[in-house]
Amino acid sequence: MKVAVIRKAHFNAAHRLHNPAWDDDRNREVFGLCNNPNGHGHNYELEVKVTGEIDPDTGMVVDLGWLAGLIRREVEQRFDHKHLNLDTEEFRNLNPTAENIAVVIWRILRVHLPEHLGLHVRLYETPRNFVECPA
Amino acid sequence: MKVAVIRKAHFNAAHRLHNPAWDDDRNREVFGLCNNPNGHGHNYELEVKVTGEIDPDTGMVVDLGWLAGLIRREVEQRFDHKHLNLDTEEFRNLNPTAENIAVVIWRILRVHLPEHLGLHVRLYETPRNFVECPA
Amino acid sequence: MKVAVIRKAHFNAAHRLHNPAWDDDRNREVFGLCNNPNGHGHNYELEVKVTGEIDPDTGMVVDLGWLAGLIRREVEQRFDHKHLNLDTEEFRNLNPTAENIAVVIWRILRVHLPEHLGLHVRLYETPRNFVECPA
Amino acid sequence: MKVAVIRKAHFNAAHRLHNPAWDDDRNREVFGLCNNPNGHGHNYELEVKVTGEIDPDTGMVVDLGWLAGLIRREVEQRFDHKHLNLDTEEFRNLNPTAENIAVVIWRILRVHLPEHLGLHVRLYETPRNFVECPA
Amino acid sequence: MKVAVIRKAHFNAAHRLHNPAWDDDRNREVFGLCNNPNGHGHNYELEVKVTGEIDPDTGMVVDLGWLAGLIRREVEQRFDHKHLNLDTEEFRNLNPTAENIAVVIWRILRVHLPEHLGLHVRLYETPRNFVECPA
Amino acid sequence: MKVAVIRKAHFNAAHRLHNPAWDDDRNREVFGLCNNPNGHGHNYELEVKVTGEIDPDTGMVVDLGWLAGLIRREVEQRFDHKHLNLDTEEFRNLNPTAENIAVVIWRILRVHLPEHLGLHVRLYETPRNFVECPA
Repeated sequence: MKVAVIRKAHFNAAHRLHNPAWDDDRNREVFGLCNNPNGHGHNYELEVKVTGEIDPDTGMVVDLGWLAGLIRREVEQRFDHKHLNLDTEEFRNLNPTAENIAVVIWRILRVHLPEHLGLHVRLYETPRNFVECPA
Repeated sequence: MKVAVIRKAHFNAAHRLHNPAWDDDRNREVFGLCNNPNGHGHNYELEVKVTGEIDPDTGMVVDLGWLAGLIRREVEQRFDHKHLNLDTEEFRNLNPTAENIAVVIWRILRVHLPEHLGLHVRLYETPRNFVECPA
Repeated sequence: MKVAVIRKAHFNAAHRLHNPAWDDDRNREVFGLCNNPNGHGHNYELEVKVTGEIDPDTGMVVDLGWLAGLIRREVEQRFDHKHLNLDTEEFRNLNPTAENIAVVIWRILRVHLPEHLGLHVRLYETPRNFVECPA
Repeated sequence: MKVAVIRKAHFNAAHRLHNPAWDDDRNREVFGLCNNPNGHGHNYELEVKVTGEIDPDTGMVVDLGWLAGLIRREVEQRFDHKHLNLDTEEFRNLNPTAENIAVVIWRILRVHLPEHLGLHVRLYETPRNFVECPA
Repeated sequence: MKVAVIRKAHFNAAHRLHNPAWDDDRNREVFGLCNNPNGHGHNYELEVKVTGEIDPDTGMVVDLGWLAGLIRREVEQRFDHKHLNLDTEEFRNLNPTAENIAVVIWRILRVHLPEHLGLHVRLYETPRNFVECPA
Repeated sequence: MKVAVIRKAHFNAAHRLHNPAWDDDRNREVFGLCNNPNGHGHNYELEVKVTGEIDPDTGMVVDLGWLAGLIRREVEQRFDHKHLNLDTEEFRNLNPTAENIAVVIWRILRVHLPEHLGLHVRLYETPRNFVECPA
């Protein structure tokens, strides 16, 4: 039976939604308050789900300490207490919507996981808005 | 990659579980306290999940402002601060169990969403009981 | 040192805010949607706080099993799955606002507690609105 | 349309992660603090999801009172306020990781459910670590 | 008996902790990651507590609709989706720590409340860090 | 104006409620399932509240990084992943009720805080039972 293990983490960041190919009016129309030039911010809450068979020796799908360390090094240290648009390579040219942030995190983590394990990411931008990938 | 976007909303309503084809004893046996003739009530917490590809121009699967407005108009204004059995067309002849309320909300929202987007609804009747559709 | 012990409980009920001394327009103006004639409802979440010295024999301020039983008998069985205005003595002639419900619960519980113990009640009408008494 | 109904429950238990086939050093290396000989403990929060068609007579997939009673008898009374390794048959020879506990609970409940209903279990070991099965 | 009524609200904002009277090294030493020049951000969750006697005509301490509107106009519209240091008058020359933000919100709201009502503010900067004033 | 700053932390531990001055029957009668000889366990969630004036140079009552480190060293490293009765000095001869644990934590932290700052502790034994001291 396949079992999924989920680990929660979090990071606090500023961002601005903006498409440089559009003029200011179009940006304000589409992104509203999220287009505020100086940015705003969120407490991003992240859930990383890893799916696989239980290893009979350990009783685990994946070592949670290792997974927590991976998330800390690859996600939290990269994005925590940053302005995503201004301080990170990933979002210099990519609009930091919750959707795009989740996909970027999924790609960052995917390469560090053995291929036989499944990976899903859920990202809360606020307690009322969140995204999942892959859906 | 398909991504899902989830928006939370809520409404407060009264309801009574009752099957008019049954006599009072059978109703009390099946529905217990939920069959109380004058009704009782809940803070319904709703999660609406929309699934699709990310639009490269906006970085979004669906505009959250539009989705929030749709839920407000079609769900909250219809059910909030109502007695579901007595004040709404949808549950005049349909038992307002959490299961049926979720399916009704899914059908209401489905016709307003483009066909290429997936739709799932999760409805919390209490923090301890909730339903999802389609499962 | 005084220590407080808090126990959570919950009940689901319908209610209607209404002042029979006012006409319909005044009621609608003051109570808005909460004046809906057929009522609406909530998942009331209750926190009962009892304050006193720790008994050195038990290490407890009050036995939590006893307190949980008291709340079940005196509050939950009285109000759970009821329409407060129509099904309870307490709110037949008293407007069931969160403030009034909290005071009623405080008075019900107060007579069952030894005098040397303090009592406070917090009542969530929704996750976003709650009251405390005495303040 | 298939609908899922989810019921939450909880139990508080002690456990120790340990593989008797390994020496102490290997156990400490793999399980870290969770290998503490005298054990530690958790508030396990359980979500049981049952999936099926809505019965048109009741408006329900499964009777929640029956489901809550099943979970109480089969899971809570078995594991609540126990040391899982020392007080239960299930984990006398099985490492009580969250993964294994979830699978054990799934197997216990599966035999009590009609075959046409689906069953999934989510188990929170802490608010930050949880598992799902089958994934 | 005095009763307290609490209303929750929220706003999302960016901020930077910085004391212009100090050099960069001292700022980094005291504020750490929170001193990041481009700022970071939070989902601020706000609880506004108003304390007083229950009005016997309404059963309320204060009208929650009025209170929610006051918070929306005076707090949310001022701070939501803003960079507190760059976009608001209040924090142009005041370090936007959670403590200072809470005091500023308390002062803004205080002048709009009748004198006989008490006012307390709780502000969550993250789910793990929050402040209350007056304490 | 006095302001309070609250920091959340957590630890997972096993415990057993037991009074060695009583016989087994009396212990089972008073402590019920919590008297299980092999213990059970909890995810303890801790809130440490520090109260004082805002330092005008930092905008803070107390440095949250310092406070978090103090809690980690003095509380988490002492109690996390331990059996409180068997693995800690503090509860070798003191019944580890939530009340006693909270008072012990308060005393441990009190000596590390400057005298002009107030200190309160809230400890969740489960999401439904918690204590505060001093009350």
